Amino acid sequence: MFNVFLVGHLLIVALDTLRDQGFEDPLRKIVEEVSPHVSGFKIGLSLLLEKGLGVISKVKKFSEREVIADLKLADIGDIMITTLKLLASVGVDAIIAHGFIGVSDALDKLIAEAEKYDVNVILVVSMSHRGSEKYIDKHFEELLQDAVQLGVHGVVIPATKPHLITQARRVLGSEVYIYSPGVGVQGAKPGDALCAGADYEIIGRLITTSLKPSSVVKTVKNIQLERVRECRGSL
Amino acid sequence: MFNVFLVGHLLIVALDTLRDQGFEDPLRKIVEEVSPHVSGFKIGLSLLLEKGLGVISKVKKFSEREVIADLKLADIGDIMITTLKLLASVGVDAIIAHGFIGVSDALDKLIAEAEKYDVNVILVVSMSHRGSEKYIDKHFEELLQDAVQLGVHGVVIPATKPHLITQARRVLGSEVYIYSPGVGVQGAKPGDALCAGADYEIIGRLITTSLKPSSVVKTVKNIQLERVRECRGSL
Repeated sequence: MFNVFLVGHLLIVALDTLRDQGFEDPLRKIVEEVSPHVSGFKIGLSLLLEKGLGVISKVKKFSEREVIADLKLADIGDIMITTLKLLASVGVDAIIAHGFIGVSDALDKLIAEAEKYDVNVILVVSMSHRGSEKYIDKHFEELLQDAVQLGVHGVVIPATKPHLITQARRVLGSEVYIYSPGVGVQGAKPGDALCAGADYEIIGRLITTSLKPSSVVKTVKNIQLERVRECRGSL
Repeated sequence: MFNVFLVGHLLIVALDTLRDQGFEDPLRKIVEEVSPHVSGFKIGLSLLLEKGLGVISKVKKFSEREVIADLKLADIGDIMITTLKLLASVGVDAIIAHGFIGVSDALDKLIAEAEKYDVNVILVVSMSHRGSEKYIDKHFEELLQDAVQLGVHGVVIPATKPHLITQARRVLGSEVYIYSPGVGVQGAKPGDALCAGADYEIIGRLITTSLKPSSVVKTVKNIQLERVRECRGSL
């Protein structure tokens, strides 16, 4: 079930905010420095709007790791497909969409088209903020069923809700990856989500606002490995 | 209740797709041509990703009408605020966000920040595709209550669901504007949503893929006025 950990890394770096830390090219600096220690990069809407689609090609140029576009797509199928095609044209490996928009004429269309472009789809099935409990979390089990039936590559569940991660792992088996944001600034500790059953932890500001991104990544990695050894007995 | 119609127009043009119709500058051509006959322009995610944020300043340059950024924001508050600030910096008048992400630490934060930048927030409370019935539409009444309590500028309800528009008008009174997409290619006829109680109909491809955008707009406008005269007795 956790074989992926034997060959890969447990960390995705969220490139939402790039503070001016005096680096000549902050994006290149961070990507090149942390790339050997991470599984991939998640690029958010604001960075894409600010820097343009070229930011994805740039990350792909400086790293061989996976690039996930986190636009939290939540539109009708045809509109999401237009966005998908733009993202595929710059080499994106995966996109994140909301499970909440439903399957018919939305996620079904997106996923069928994404397969043609060899782009993975990752569904948001819960979020870290309190408001997520009002509507999204009430449909958590149904959203997991949608994920299984759609055969998506992965789901997003926040590290701050380890009980939902554990529940999801039981429903999803080992076929669907669990990506877990909310580690660091949002409150969860490295390893919390992994011990609950997640495949990857996503960390953003803790790394991207640091003067030494690679040392933060190495520290996080060590904590993750130690925690996983403790909670699973072994790797 | 419908006083707005005496002074304004009933149409918003969705600039999602700009086909190459041989115009030197298709965006400028469409915006300048239709501007005298419409209330505003709605700019979608794909156009923003393709052309960059400058597309908003450009529309503002060629028209005095309102510009709505339709990114269907659906993230935690802090992340949406980063996007809001970028959009405000290029002069956007309104943004569209999803009601289903909930209020606490999401919409409450976004709306408080949007007020500082004098940007209106419009909430999606129903969508036109079939999948919308699975989750979103089940919470329609609660989403309307959120809209009232948050004091949003407007809500989005598709023209293909006139019964929901009528229900929303009763709940929202005249304080919250109802924007209605889905007219044209998606199936509803001009005037359908207005007669149900909407303030604005949003039309995209029917106009933006036409060789004569202004004649399409004038035709739509005439149909709208005729329908509204019929269904409301008078303007």
